Amino acid sequence: MSTWGQYFRVTTYGESHCRSVGCIVDGCPPGLELTEADIQPQMTRRRPGQSALTTPRDEKDRVEIQSGTEFGITLGTPIAMVVRNEDQRPKDYGGSTMDLYPRPSHADFTYLEKYGVKASSGGGRSSARETIGRVAAGAIAEKFLSLAHNIEIVAFVSSVGNEHLFPPTPEHPSPSTNPEFLKLIETIDRKTVDTFSPIRCPETEAAARMTKVIEKFRDNHDSIGGTVTCVIRNVPVGLGEPCFDKLEAKLGHAMLSIPATKGFEIGSGFGGCEVPGSIHNDPFVVNTSETGSPRLTTKTNNSGGIQGGISNGASIYFRVAFKPAATIGQAQTTTSYSGEEGVLEAKGRHDPCVTPRAVPIVEAMSSLVIMDALMAQYAREGAKNLLPQKAQTIRTSPTTAPNGAPSL
Amino acid sequence: MSTWGQYFRVTTYGESHCRSVGCIVDGCPPGLELTEADIQPQMTRRRPGQSALTTPRDEKDRVEIQSGTEFGITLGTPIAMVVRNEDQRPKDYGGSTMDLYPRPSHADFTYLEKYGVKASSGGGRSSARETIGRVAAGAIAEKFLSLAHNIEIVAFVSSVGNEHLFPPTPEHPSPSTNPEFLKLIETIDRKTVDTFSPIRCPETEAAARMTKVIEKFRDNHDSIGGTVTCVIRNVPVGLGEPCFDKLEAKLGHAMLSIPATKGFEIGSGFGGCEVPGSIHNDPFVVNTSETGSPRLTTKTNNSGGIQGGISNGASIYFRVAFKPAATIGQAQTTTSYSGEEGVLEAKGRHDPCVTPRAVPIVEAMSSLVIMDALMAQYAREGAKNLLPQKAQTIRTSPTTAPNGAPSL
Amino acid sequence: MSTWGQYFRVTTYGESHCRSVGCIVDGCPPGLELTEADIQPQMTRRRPGQSALTTPRDEKDRVEIQSGTEFGITLGTPIAMVVRNEDQRPKDYGGSTMDLYPRPSHADFTYLEKYGVKASSGGGRSSARETIGRVAAGAIAEKFLSLAHNIEIVAFVSSVGNEHLFPPTPEHPSPSTNPEFLKLIETIDRKTVDTFSPIRCPETEAAARMTKVIEKFRDNHDSIGGTVTCVIRNVPVGLGEPCFDKLEAKLGHAMLSIPATKGFEIGSGFGGCEVPGSIHNDPFVVNTSETGSPRLTTKTNNSGGIQGGISNGASIYFRVAFKPAATIGQAQTTTSYSGEEGVLEAKGRHDPCVTPRAVPIVEAMSSLVIMDALMAQYAREGAKNLLPQKAQTIRTSPTTAPNGAPSL
Amino acid sequence: MSTWGQYFRVTTYGESHCRSVGCIVDGCPPGLELTEADIQPQMTRRRPGQSALTTPRDEKDRVEIQSGTEFGITLGTPIAMVVRNEDQRPKDYGGSTMDLYPRPSHADFTYLEKYGVKASSGGGRSSARETIGRVAAGAIAEKFLSLAHNIEIVAFVSSVGNEHLFPPTPEHPSPSTNPEFLKLIETIDRKTVDTFSPIRCPETEAAARMTKVIEKFRDNHDSIGGTVTCVIRNVPVGLGEPCFDKLEAKLGHAMLSIPATKGFEIGSGFGGCEVPGSIHNDPFVVNTSETGSPRLTTKTNNSGGIQGGISNGASIYFRVAFKPAATIGQAQTTTSYSGEEGVLEAKGRHDPCVTPRAVPIVEAMSSLVIMDALMAQYAREGAKNLLPQKAQTIRTSPTTAPNGAPSL
Repeated sequence: MSTWGQYFRVTTYGESHCRSVGCIVDGCPPGLELTEADIQPQMTRRRPGQSALTTPRDEKDRVEIQSGTEFGITLGTPIAMVVRNEDQRPKDYGGSTMDLYPRPSHADFTYLEKYGVKASSGGGRSSARETIGRVAAGAIAEKFLSLAHNIEIVAFVSSVGNEHLFPPTPEHPSPSTNPEFLKLIETIDRKTVDTFSPIRCPETEAAARMTKVIEKFRDNHDSIGGTVTCVIRNVPVGLGEPCFDKLEAKLGHAMLSIPATKGFEIGSGFGGCEVPGSIHNDPFVVNTSETGSPRLTTKTNNSGGIQGGISNGASIYFRVAFKPAATIGQAQTTTSYSGEEGVLEAKGRHDPCVTPRAVPIVEAMSSLVIMDALMAQYAREGAKNLLPQKAQTIRTSPTTAPNGAPSL
Repeated sequence: MSTWGQYFRVTTYGESHCRSVGCIVDGCPPGLELTEADIQPQMTRRRPGQSALTTPRDEKDRVEIQSGTEFGITLGTPIAMVVRNEDQRPKDYGGSTMDLYPRPSHADFTYLEKYGVKASSGGGRSSARETIGRVAAGAIAEKFLSLAHNIEIVAFVSSVGNEHLFPPTPEHPSPSTNPEFLKLIETIDRKTVDTFSPIRCPETEAAARMTKVIEKFRDNHDSIGGTVTCVIRNVPVGLGEPCFDKLEAKLGHAMLSIPATKGFEIGSGFGGCEVPGSIHNDPFVVNTSETGSPRLTTKTNNSGGIQGGISNGASIYFRVAFKPAATIGQAQTTTSYSGEEGVLEAKGRHDPCVTPRAVPIVEAMSSLVIMDALMAQYAREGAKNLLPQKAQTIRTSPTTAPNGAPSL
Repeated sequence: MSTWGQYFRVTTYGESHCRSVGCIVDGCPPGLELTEADIQPQMTRRRPGQSALTTPRDEKDRVEIQSGTEFGITLGTPIAMVVRNEDQRPKDYGGSTMDLYPRPSHADFTYLEKYGVKASSGGGRSSARETIGRVAAGAIAEKFLSLAHNIEIVAFVSSVGNEHLFPPTPEHPSPSTNPEFLKLIETIDRKTVDTFSPIRCPETEAAARMTKVIEKFRDNHDSIGGTVTCVIRNVPVGLGEPCFDKLEAKLGHAMLSIPATKGFEIGSGFGGCEVPGSIHNDPFVVNTSETGSPRLTTKTNNSGGIQGGISNGASIYFRVAFKPAATIGQAQTTTSYSGEEGVLEAKGRHDPCVTPRAVPIVEAMSSLVIMDALMAQYAREGAKNLLPQKAQTIRTSPTTAPNGAPSL
Repeated sequence: MSTWGQYFRVTTYGESHCRSVGCIVDGCPPGLELTEADIQPQMTRRRPGQSALTTPRDEKDRVEIQSGTEFGITLGTPIAMVVRNEDQRPKDYGGSTMDLYPRPSHADFTYLEKYGVKASSGGGRSSARETIGRVAAGAIAEKFLSLAHNIEIVAFVSSVGNEHLFPPTPEHPSPSTNPEFLKLIETIDRKTVDTFSPIRCPETEAAARMTKVIEKFRDNHDSIGGTVTCVIRNVPVGLGEPCFDKLEAKLGHAMLSIPATKGFEIGSGFGGCEVPGSIHNDPFVVNTSETGSPRLTTKTNNSGGIQGGISNGASIYFRVAFKPAATIGQAQTTTSYSGEEGVLEAKGRHDPCVTPRAVPIVEAMSSLVIMDALMAQYAREGAKNLLPQKAQTIRTSPTTAPNGAPSL
């Protein structure tokens, strides 16, 4: 369905040619300072038309809060947000090529078969425009996470086609064992990522290589995919709900619900299958480097900040695969709805690589996952800390500690 | 939480040292022939101790249906299933090494921090024993899927360490473009997979290479990871719920909730990011080869049977990454709960590679995802087919058609 | 939370002084003809300011569909609906009486304690304006129910103060044993109810008595409560999900979520406790009076159309209690937020009896309950009818039969 | 479905003739001392066969905890509980009267139509035996509520047939305005209720009158209904989730899911419709009588402890209607499944009034509702108290305060 989350519950609506797109956020903590100014920046980062590398359409995407705040403070009631569509006219069926053919690797065919209605916008809910509601809701969650726990979420492009920021090597089948990679994810911020706009790969040389790949595919009227890596820092220990709602499972679900995604890996990921257990295991050490009392943390971080489905206080990082855009300028031989072979040609200019634009969407979905997991843990801790302490129990409060993990 | 699914709802319980493990299946269709004999085979395939390559412990794992059936027919009411634990005695805290140290890359530390209770079994719900309830529930779903739609689900080991059944090549960065791979997933069955026991990689030469890798790590008291590929055939068109519950997102969630998983990819997956859109797009063709009326299908299957989050009638396939087992015989330098460095040594023999045992668990979770998506679509189709037909609507019934996709 | 339903899922938003109120309906069957004209009539029936008996404020309440339809047909995607608020200015805190005192039996105090935010509109989500989203969503469900099953839902006022349409008597402690009552619920329609506007009690004499009661309380600057009876006809057999989601439990939940409700009773209700089992039991008879094949039905209907939590094909009827409106013109001695005793006087004219306006809200919530229960049963029947038939199973299809109960 | 609650989630299973009945409780706070001894007392209070007034069958109903505890402490993982059925043999279809006729006002007919399977136990999940899982789960919730908030839940029989403990009078159409009633609900405890066993009406004279009614119906081989009143004391301010999950709506849902219930009323209830607003409104006063700082409370309690769907710190009380038992010894003329009229006679002795046995079930469902609402509020408060305080916000912590309402 179109609802995400149990505690911080987001319901989105809207397709390409309707009046508006948007969402309702139910369960937002009351007392949070919030205006459109907190939300618009990520909306703008998500917007197409930001460079020659991405689609040249210009959408305004101004968000309007409808409810749930008063004098700039959240009330605890549902927050509805609306972004008007500029082009609301659904096309009538005039026998154009688009109407006759289900576009290859688009959702036209599957939407028609699922819903039994021939919609002007094909699989309208499968378009990137649907992600507006996610980004708006994510911006609210992010503000809370930042204020309450100093949580930082940063995504960036880690590969385009076969050009990788950290290509797999025999020594490092996964970047998780590479100190350079670990250093990057501990320090990278959004501002730095955006200085590498529009490619959003935060390393000069790799960015240049990736840009060249995209330009090549653009010139061929073709498209290419890529990957986005995301890091979430300062996550408290204890988030994630065994057994089905492990934190990586929720993150995977969230990322694979973004249009055009084909894969997700947490921590060492697929490359980690090739690393011996003796290296892959993350031994515990005492962390005394930060202000505050000493805490247990891990020396390495092949786990990606999650063990047994529960956050361990280390940085959570993962990678998401985006397929080459299905809309290409090249002519494609395919078959019409009525079973006749023919050639389909998309008009206009198309985005040869959607991956850079996915960055704020990945960040938004990350914030929704963490927010929901946090509130589940607040409920549990709220309950357990009211009980008399026993010999077998310890009074931990990771979600209330400023830096995540509890002190020793 | 410990519940999966909205329609076919599975709730599991149990940890290593309690009286029993099991589950309740709520929402199973009534009128299905069902006895323990339908469930036990997958329980046995999941069981450890099947060869020198896997852990030598012998658990009996006999499932007992408690409710929800009468005279071998499901009633439509909740089906509870119980498997007794043979060793129910929780260990007392006697100062053994295990009690002093959180095991690296296990859930001991995160469970303690999350729940605040020092449990004998550490992160007891994070152990493989927890998967018994999933496999039992999955066997019921599988029986329905087979009877109602002839759906076939087969998983097999596709890599161990750096030995792959279909290694990525410049020509085929993803096996999705490789005809050999596509042929395999259309034809493979469980019986064939099990003839390659215990490695469960259905190709003689690759199986031998993988076995050699495992033996090497076993002899070093180390461990190694691997991947499992799974195919789901004969899935009706139209399954998957946009926008958050896309079919691949639910599959990813399900797979990443299995203990020790690090990644998930659908169809072309991560390799697909490196394939040009002009090759990656799956053009439509008319399928007339099977009995029945001609139907629209795709010529290639880089999508992995899902477009826009909705099944398109082609075979669904995906790959799941399993990390090297965290329990190894080698001594590991780590830190105790109280912050003192020391050396942890696990006693006894341990499973050097859990991947082959994961095969029936991957199949079980697949069946739960498809079952739930099917019932969502039954509800929608049941409703829409009661409405008067309009010019814009077509009366499709993919979930009632024998072979998935509707005829032209 | 602000979400109702699992299949036909309604999420509402909005309070008194925000930009708009409305809802998102997710899971609406595709292919349903739908425009604002289908929704507005119930919005208008809900609107205040319709007579001297109800509140004189005039709100326009024009509904605008934002998404989910194209060319007047539902797409199967979320339908967002928006009704703009005319007076959007939240009041600032100027030390007025209203700001100093929590109004007795309003939600001002509990909202402040729950959310910790002092909102201009007090318990804004607890106001009757919140019900706009429910009525809009209910109108969509109603259209489906009518088209697909000829289901009719009619509510009317059955008492005001101590004036009852069917007062309890020693012979009939519940109207369920009174043939006059049973005849009324089988024949009453909305048009007839509205000819008795604004009181909406469909019997001349009782309506006059009730009107007199309201006028008396209006003239005393006081208020009085009342009850609404609702009947749902032509409901298919088999709706309701044991054990926690019995059909009457969902109806009760739905009704008791309407502001100002204090009670709910199904069928014979509280009065039924005083009827002997030998009279209360509903024996089965064969119904041959309608067109179609003979079907089993009950001779009497003390059950109110539900047995064991599941609809039995007979008319479902229930009664809902509405308390006297908390806002009264009389001065009330109470205590301020800061603990000082004082007198609170509400300005302006107030609705002395909200019960008649509740009629379309009760109907709307009824339609949402039945819609959701129907879709749950479509899912189950869709599944079971794909299984091979066994000796113990019968192939019933109550939800697809035109008149509810299956033929013998 | 068979699941109750979002946070403290209870899933039950089992029917009359299967191996066992029971439940899984998921989300129980970790660190709670818990053994079977905490659960058995309510199981025993629920058990039939306790006197000549209730059914003489003797069921043992010994509960066994399967998982989720270690050394008598909850782990935070799912707690499975099992109660074996003594008589597991499902009857075969031998043409007995019971097999030919759907019993009037039982669930035989509706279960058959809903599920399409002719079960030996008819509507097996609709029997009172299904409530065992509820009572077991409720006992766990109760223990937490008592330890963490000193919450007390007491139910008792308030009427049998037309004999009432507080009959409605012109002066007190609802007992909510009667000081005697209010005094009773503030002081009554379970021990006192049980001294009036088996009738469980805690007033000598009324108990005698009710007993006489039951005896009369027993001797006539007939049955009679009654009502149960329940009070929940010391509930923190702020529980209940607007708008659909108001606290009274959840209580109503919970109570109406108990077999044989026909009605629910909160606070003044149906009688409250006849009380003028000027009397019905509950003015605020300062409560200084208890230890601790002065707090705002209400002078009267017609609201029943809930305003705007949210608890206000006053005692919550409500009443539940139970119909006359459907199984009676008298012969009943009815119609067989195949449409032939005949006479149905139940053998053996039957419970003429189930109301007294419902007392612990009403208490159990109350505890599940309050527990779930509490955990929702812990999550919200946990979140909001981490935010910087603003001019419009106050830092309340009702769920952590010992006596419910916050101090002034």
